[in-house]
Amino acid sequence: MTGRFIGVGLGPGDPGLITRKAAQLIESAHVIAYPTLAGGDSFARSIAADFIRAEAREIRMDVPMTPARAPAQAAYDQGAAEIAAALDAGQDVVCLCEGDPFFYGSFMYLYARLSIKYDTEIVPGVTSVTACAARAAMPLVARNEVMTVLPGPLPEAELRAHLEAADTLVIMKVGRHLPKLRALLDEAGLTDNATYVERATLGAEVILPLAQAPETAPYFSMILIAKGADPWL
Amino acid sequence: MTGRFIGVGLGPGDPGLITRKAAQLIESAHVIAYPTLAGGDSFARSIAADFIRAEAREIRMDVPMTPARAPAQAAYDQGAAEIAAALDAGQDVVCLCEGDPFFYGSFMYLYARLSIKYDTEIVPGVTSVTACAARAAMPLVARNEVMTVLPGPLPEAELRAHLEAADTLVIMKVGRHLPKLRALLDEAGLTDNATYVERATLGAEVILPLAQAPETAPYFSMILIAKGADPWL
Repeated sequence: MTGRFIGVGLGPGDPGLITRKAAQLIESAHVIAYPTLAGGDSFARSIAADFIRAEAREIRMDVPMTPARAPAQAAYDQGAAEIAAALDAGQDVVCLCEGDPFFYGSFMYLYARLSIKYDTEIVPGVTSVTACAARAAMPLVARNEVMTVLPGPLPEAELRAHLEAADTLVIMKVGRHLPKLRALLDEAGLTDNATYVERATLGAEVILPLAQAPETAPYFSMILIAKGADPWL
Repeated sequence: MTGRFIGVGLGPGDPGLITRKAAQLIESAHVIAYPTLAGGDSFARSIAADFIRAEAREIRMDVPMTPARAPAQAAYDQGAAEIAAALDAGQDVVCLCEGDPFFYGSFMYLYARLSIKYDTEIVPGVTSVTACAARAAMPLVARNEVMTVLPGPLPEAELRAHLEAADTLVIMKVGRHLPKLRALLDEAGLTDNATYVERATLGAEVILPLAQAPETAPYFSMILIAKGADPWL
């Protein structure tokens, strides 16, 4: 009997936003796996820390943040091989995922490598999208409104087209793209509808109208734009 | 001292997908509020049932499902008035919300009526979007992919434009719009990329390729479309 490969979403950062099911799976796990940023800390592990058994085996994947894909692919290859060895030995492996495993998560690279061969379960998590909206007191969509989620690194022309088409826009991975995004939103007349959110639900959380956002943004930052055509009454 | 108005997301239906924070808030609540469909059962209450105190006061809002808005608005007016009376008396009120409070939730109509006057907190929840993706074993977005969430009742031309523009599409509120949506997806050559999901995470869950979906769909059904240009390796 091979073990089960389980990807658990941990939500945006506040351990209170871990689901009951995710907490139970982590508490009972003998093998856990998670990515780290180039050998440093693991954000995913920090969210789940209170639930990890002291004696659990931890498989770390040191994923380099390089523009080229090959170094990260090699890290996932190695992580997948270590996880596969545990699964082959009959152990379940719980993989810790920030937010939701299937929503811009590095888990998908492991899923692509392991789900064909091994029994796999995904436990969804609270995404940063609704967490940021909750913290910013900004309802996202109601009735027949359309919401589009856009990564900030996209080219300007593509971003511009989507900004026009949807009622609500969520721009992820703002980081160093903040100046470009500010200019685009200004041009589209949407700056007054835009809220900047950094590290939602964590101690260092920042929530500001986009016009008052800092000059530089971390990778974990987001811009929410609601055109607000509907008063939702 | 007035009480606090707290909207808690309960996730898609499996009580295991309630967050720890939401469960704690419900367990300690002396007043809870929730919508019912025209006086019938409350889906939100059924998700949270195990955490509701036996002695809690329950404020029910019987929301009629009519095309005209006025009857529903009257129901929210009355619900908001009952909640306001409890808040004025110094009691906290926990409002139960399917999924996430700010994502196509009826909670927004109460929020519009109460948040200006009362201290309000939103606890985000797992949305049906990532829950359906998890159950359907269908990664949503990675890297710089774009995801658009579309309500099924939208006019065909609008749906068609969005189907072309995004990498991943989530069509909510499928229900009686299923035949129209099938035809549109066929026309766009996307039927083979589309998965139909009904009542995700519940006992009566249905997950099928769209081509094999039933003739009629309930309101709580969804179509997920991933164009899959990227192998996510």
